[in-house]
Amino acid sequence: MTAANKLFDPNMRVNGDRLWSSLMEMAKIGATAKGGCNRQALTELDRQGRDLFSNWAKSAGCTIRVDSMGNIIARRTGKNNTLPTVITGSHLDTQPTGGKFDGVYGVLAGLEVIRTLNDNKVETEEPIEVVVWTNEEGARFSPAMIGSGVWSGEFDLEYGHSRTDKDGTSILNALENIGYLGDDSFKPSQVKAAFEVHIEQGPILENENLQIGVLSGVQGMNWYDLILEGQPCHAGPSPMESRQDPFMGLSTITQKLYDMVANYAPWSRVTFGDIKAEPGARNTVPKQLILAVDLRHPEQSILNEMDKHFRNIVAEESQKLNLKGTIHDEWTSPAVAFDKGCIQAVRKAVDMLGYSNMDMVSGAGHDSVYVSKVAAASMIFVPCEKGLSHNEAENAKAEDLKAGCNVLLHAMLNRCS
Amino acid sequence: MTAANKLFDPNMRVNGDRLWSSLMEMAKIGATAKGGCNRQALTELDRQGRDLFSNWAKSAGCTIRVDSMGNIIARRTGKNNTLPTVITGSHLDTQPTGGKFDGVYGVLAGLEVIRTLNDNKVETEEPIEVVVWTNEEGARFSPAMIGSGVWSGEFDLEYGHSRTDKDGTSILNALENIGYLGDDSFKPSQVKAAFEVHIEQGPILENENLQIGVLSGVQGMNWYDLILEGQPCHAGPSPMESRQDPFMGLSTITQKLYDMVANYAPWSRVTFGDIKAEPGARNTVPKQLILAVDLRHPEQSILNEMDKHFRNIVAEESQKLNLKGTIHDEWTSPAVAFDKGCIQAVRKAVDMLGYSNMDMVSGAGHDSVYVSKVAAASMIFVPCEKGLSHNEAENAKAEDLKAGCNVLLHAMLNRCS
Repeated sequence: MTAANKLFDPNMRVNGDRLWSSLMEMAKIGATAKGGCNRQALTELDRQGRDLFSNWAKSAGCTIRVDSMGNIIARRTGKNNTLPTVITGSHLDTQPTGGKFDGVYGVLAGLEVIRTLNDNKVETEEPIEVVVWTNEEGARFSPAMIGSGVWSGEFDLEYGHSRTDKDGTSILNALENIGYLGDDSFKPSQVKAAFEVHIEQGPILENENLQIGVLSGVQGMNWYDLILEGQPCHAGPSPMESRQDPFMGLSTITQKLYDMVANYAPWSRVTFGDIKAEPGARNTVPKQLILAVDLRHPEQSILNEMDKHFRNIVAEESQKLNLKGTIHDEWTSPAVAFDKGCIQAVRKAVDMLGYSNMDMVSGAGHDSVYVSKVAAASMIFVPCEKGLSHNEAENAKAEDLKAGCNVLLHAMLNRCS
Repeated sequence: MTAANKLFDPNMRVNGDRLWSSLMEMAKIGATAKGGCNRQALTELDRQGRDLFSNWAKSAGCTIRVDSMGNIIARRTGKNNTLPTVITGSHLDTQPTGGKFDGVYGVLAGLEVIRTLNDNKVETEEPIEVVVWTNEEGARFSPAMIGSGVWSGEFDLEYGHSRTDKDGTSILNALENIGYLGDDSFKPSQVKAAFEVHIEQGPILENENLQIGVLSGVQGMNWYDLILEGQPCHAGPSPMESRQDPFMGLSTITQKLYDMVANYAPWSRVTFGDIKAEPGARNTVPKQLILAVDLRHPEQSILNEMDKHFRNIVAEESQKLNLKGTIHDEWTSPAVAFDKGCIQAVRKAVDMLGYSNMDMVSGAGHDSVYVSKVAAASMIFVPCEKGLSHNEAENAKAEDLKAGCNVLLHAMLNRCS
């Protein structure tokens, strides 16, 4: 144990039942028939969820501020309130057919940390803050993670305010409508360390029968549209050998991409999430196929190599098959390496608590991606059932959620003076 | 030369310029900006096309009858009008972005045969008839070839009348609307021999630099939906080796189908015309893919073998990749062998005329498929530019169209007593 966390009782533990109760109470807002949640960003239901959280935080002695993107900051004062703060947080908004834990767990775990500090009458040197980031899911407003994105300077405020949902309502109007347009000047420079605890949203911890994931970073992600153009022709008369059939390219290119990505296992990923055939007539070789390609790797240099291989594969196979292959770069999110000090704080907490664990990277985006660009940050994962997320069947064990919350508590205390 | 066609002047030729002029005149009705035609079945434009043809046929001395499916029969009387007739015909309806030749050529070539017989004052023993079949394309009303289908007994009249377009208009109503609901009792038993001349809609004749295709039959066709079901998961967190990714099945199954079909070359075909991913989100492995599969071969026994291989490939690959593969049989059209006497009549005409030619099968469906089920029938193909059809750029050479029409003339005369 370091000098820092000697100040706090290593036997202190969060109240797992209270955490679970809060999660179940929050889940009633926007509850779906199939046991999930539909509480999309800046809706009336999101307002109810925000109000519930704010009231709980106030009852726990926190002050509540709201910034111009509707991000909520619940602050537990420290001994020295001029010091940069140790923060945690996540989001309360859900997918349209989302679950009870994605994001919500990270927010209510932060609240449970504050309640536990209160129970134990712990005074920290620095203030502790729990942040609710606006519109993490990107389900109502695109892009995702816009609240943390504007806060970190990734997007400017005007851009953030002007994003609209499919009915044309802007984030600015939606914030006004639910009374969450604030003017707090919360800034990255005021943050000493940031943590986020989250369900894994993947099957690794469950499969390995481990309780905690110590995150070292977030996978870099490249999104592309691959357009394979051929020559439409009638399914009957046209001899196979003279066809310019985009499906022939699809077959070999996808196979070669699976093979290429396997060379960078175990953290490499390739996903084809969507495809469209034009004109899409049953008895006509399509003029073109548009394939959504998603490449990921936690090391940027390897992701860059994968990108190069991808382009070569498309060029070679297109030429072989007399097709036109075009790659549109749709979006990119560089690989993120979390702060060494924060990672170390999590590792120490896990070791002290004795939870089974592994080092891992996040394959999904989180608010911590943007936070980590401007502040020392890292993340903690706990298992979720069958790796399911963005799904009404999303589930997690109370004991794992409690374990993750204990890790969060002691990691945050580790970063307090 | 046989006794039969000694009766007619072997030097008689159609008027290629007149045929071309008629084609260009008809193409004005529904002409598109890109040089094609949009004259869909039983529309006001189709009525104009039907009227134009009927007027031309009347001017050529024909009587016009219309049956209950709107099929038009233009009759040139013979010496003995109680004899079964020698017929030819095709369709005047087009695809929404169709060309000037598909179907129309077969109808106007029939008209040109009648005009040529008139020019040469030829009296045939049997009447000669040119038939315009209703809704061959299937673009407005599904299924395709419904006019010849009802006539041949493949579908009953009530079924034919009740087919609706996407606005809910039935064929019966559409026939009434354009004044082409007839009550003629034209029957298969009244047909001695039937011919249809058509552009190839494929590149074979052009590639081989040949002028005439002597058709022996039509490929058997099987239409399927292949449904590959996996497990949706997030593009990032889910390790590649634990995925149940329908795209992995798509890649190997399509490749194995291409390989399998190559074993039955040159007349075997596999076409994937359409595909749909569910839910189709860029960063989620799809729950399922639905792939339209079209298998063709001119020999039914080989098509049946291909069908068996297809099922085995799907079963094996699905099991290997932990997917659920389901094959829905959507439609089947057995291989058609044309009438030996009619094929022989075409071959003799081609040989006598000295056109370069090859034996071939049709890979596309035509009204002759249904006609051949209840009457002696065969087809003649001429090349079209780059094999393009169902396309506004559809094109054919006037000299080839003339050659095909000459073959039609002499094949029909060959079948007259």
